[in-house]
Amino acid sequence: MDYEIAIIGAGPSGCAAGIYAGRGGAHAVVYDKGMGGGLAINSPRIENYPGFLSVGGMELMEKMKEHASQYAEMKLFEEVKDIKIDEEIEVITDRGKYSVKAVIICTGTQPRKLNVKGEEKFTGRGVSYCATCDGFFFKGKKVAVVGGGNSAIIEAIYLSNIGADVSVIHRRDELRAEKIIEKEAREKGINFVWNSVVDEIFGNEKVEGIKIRDVKTNELKEMSIDGIFVSIGEEPNNGIAKKIGLALDEHGFIKADDMGRTNIDRIFAAGDITGGVRQIVVAVSQGAKAAISAMKAIGKRSIWDL
Amino acid sequence: MDYEIAIIGAGPSGCAAGIYAGRGGAHAVVYDKGMGGGLAINSPRIENYPGFLSVGGMELMEKMKEHASQYAEMKLFEEVKDIKIDEEIEVITDRGKYSVKAVIICTGTQPRKLNVKGEEKFTGRGVSYCATCDGFFFKGKKVAVVGGGNSAIIEAIYLSNIGADVSVIHRRDELRAEKIIEKEAREKGINFVWNSVVDEIFGNEKVEGIKIRDVKTNELKEMSIDGIFVSIGEEPNNGIAKKIGLALDEHGFIKADDMGRTNIDRIFAAGDITGGVRQIVVAVSQGAKAAISAMKAIGKRSIWDL
Repeated sequence: MDYEIAIIGAGPSGCAAGIYAGRGGAHAVVYDKGMGGGLAINSPRIENYPGFLSVGGMELMEKMKEHASQYAEMKLFEEVKDIKIDEEIEVITDRGKYSVKAVIICTGTQPRKLNVKGEEKFTGRGVSYCATCDGFFFKGKKVAVVGGGNSAIIEAIYLSNIGADVSVIHRRDELRAEKIIEKEAREKGINFVWNSVVDEIFGNEKVEGIKIRDVKTNELKEMSIDGIFVSIGEEPNNGIAKKIGLALDEHGFIKADDMGRTNIDRIFAAGDITGGVRQIVVAVSQGAKAAISAMKAIGKRSIWDL
Repeated sequence: MDYEIAIIGAGPSGCAAGIYAGRGGAHAVVYDKGMGGGLAINSPRIENYPGFLSVGGMELMEKMKEHASQYAEMKLFEEVKDIKIDEEIEVITDRGKYSVKAVIICTGTQPRKLNVKGEEKFTGRGVSYCATCDGFFFKGKKVAVVGGGNSAIIEAIYLSNIGADVSVIHRRDELRAEKIIEKEAREKGINFVWNSVVDEIFGNEKVEGIKIRDVKTNELKEMSIDGIFVSIGEEPNNGIAKKIGLALDEHGFIKADDMGRTNIDRIFAAGDITGGVRQIVVAVSQGAKAAISAMKAIGKRSIWDL
C-alpha cells in the first residue's frame, strides 16, 4: 500500500481533502497534472472566500497548497492517467503506479472554448483563457472579453486596470455577474456589446480582429482588437471519471451526494467536477466532506460519524 | 421594506451569507445577540480552514465579520426574538422591528452542559465552556477537560501550553479527535482518564474537585481540581426555529436541503444549526448557498441559477 487516500487535483477541493485526510491520520497524496491551484489561479481577484477581503487567485491557492502540504504528500506535475479498481485500487500516473485504498476525484473544470474559426490558431497569440496569466501583454492595447459571469467581468476590470481598452461581449442583454462587480465595471467605463456572439477571430501572425454577430438581428460587424479573453463558462475534466465508469449528469459532471459519494465504492468526488454551485467556498467544503467519507470507507476513525 | 435579506447569527455561515447576499446586490443585515463569530471564537486554534495554516478562532472570526461588514449591515448585540411571516416578513429584535423579504437562520449551537450537581453553581467560578476565554486564569493550576472530540483535545493542549496540569476525562476508551491532535496531546504528556464521566462538581466558593465515575465498573473517585472545561458537544440554538414552526430533526437541528431551503418559503438555514458535519469549512459553504437560494426566492438575479 503506497497511500491510503489518493486525491486527484490540487485545487480548492483537493487541498481541503488533503488537509482533512491527513489531519485525520490517513496517509494521503495529492496529484496534479500541473502546478495545482485549479481554475482559481486564473482569477486576478477573489473577494468572496470568507476570511480574505481581497486576494489574488494565485496567492490564495499558494496558501491552500502550502496548507495541504502540511498533511499530505503533494505530487505536482504528475498526471493521473488511469485508475484500476480491484481489491486494492491502482492509480496509474505518467510517472508510476501506486496502490491506494480510496480515491477522491477533484479534477475540476477547464475553460469552455468558443469553437469558432481562428480560435485554436491564435491561442497564445492573442486568444487567452486567463487574464491573470496573459493580461500584462495587453497594456495600452484593445481587448475583448467574452462572457457575462463573475469571472468575465472581474477579468474585464483587471484588464482595464492594467491599461487595456476593454469591450465585454455578451450574448444576453444583462450580466450574470454579482451586482457589485457589474457596478465597478460600469464605473470603470468598460464598453458593453450586448446580445452578441463572436463568430470568427482573424489576423495574420496574431489576432487583429473579431467578427461579432448580433443574436437578435443576425447583423455581422468587425471589431479591431489585439487580444480576446474567453470566459464563457467551464467544461468538466471528466476523462478519468468516464474511464472508470462513474455516473455523470447530462452536462458531464460527476454525480456525487452531499458527502462526496459516487456510484462506485471507495471512489469519491468533490469540487467543480461535481457541478452545482462552482465557488471556492463550496469546493473546500466538498473536499473536507469527501475526505471524511473516504476515511470512513477505509475503516479509519473520523471526527464525524455520519 | 427595511432590508431584503435578514441573516440571524454572525458566525461563519452568517458571515458567508452576508458576503454573498450583499455582493449579489441584496440589501442585507446580519443580527447577532452577542459579538458574533459563533462557536468558532471559543477555539484557541483552528488549523483546518483552508488558507489559514493556523489561526485563533477569535482572529479568524474578526476577519470574517469584517469581510461581511463590507457587504451587509452588521447589527451585533441585537437579539432576534421572533419572526412574523406574512406577505412581508417581520423580524422582531430586542431593539426594534424590521420588515424583510427573506430570512437566513444561522443561529448555530451552544456548548452542551454536563447537567450534574454543582455545574450551574460554579459556572464562572471554575466551570467553563471556553478555554480561550478562561484558560488564562488556570496557569499553574490543575484542570480537567471533559470530552474526546477535536474541541476538547485542542482545549486540553491549549491549557497545557498555558501551564495548567491537564487531565482529559472521556467516557469512551478512544478519542474522536483528529489523529494529529491526539498525537500532540500525548506528546504534551496530557493525562487521560478513560471510560469515565463526571458525576458531581464540588467546592465552597469555587470549584475544588470533581467526582468521577468509571462507566464500566461504576466505581467513584474524587479528583482535586481548580477548574473544569466542559467540551462534550453542542446543542442547537433552535428557539426561533421552533417558534416559527421550522421542521427539526430528532436532535433539534433544522432540516434544510443542500441549498439551505427549509419547509417554510423564504426562510433558509445554514451552518451548525442544520446539523451534519459541523466544521467552519462546511458552514461557510452553506451560508453562501443559502444566500444564493434567498436571492432567488426574492426574485433577485444570482450568480448561479439552480
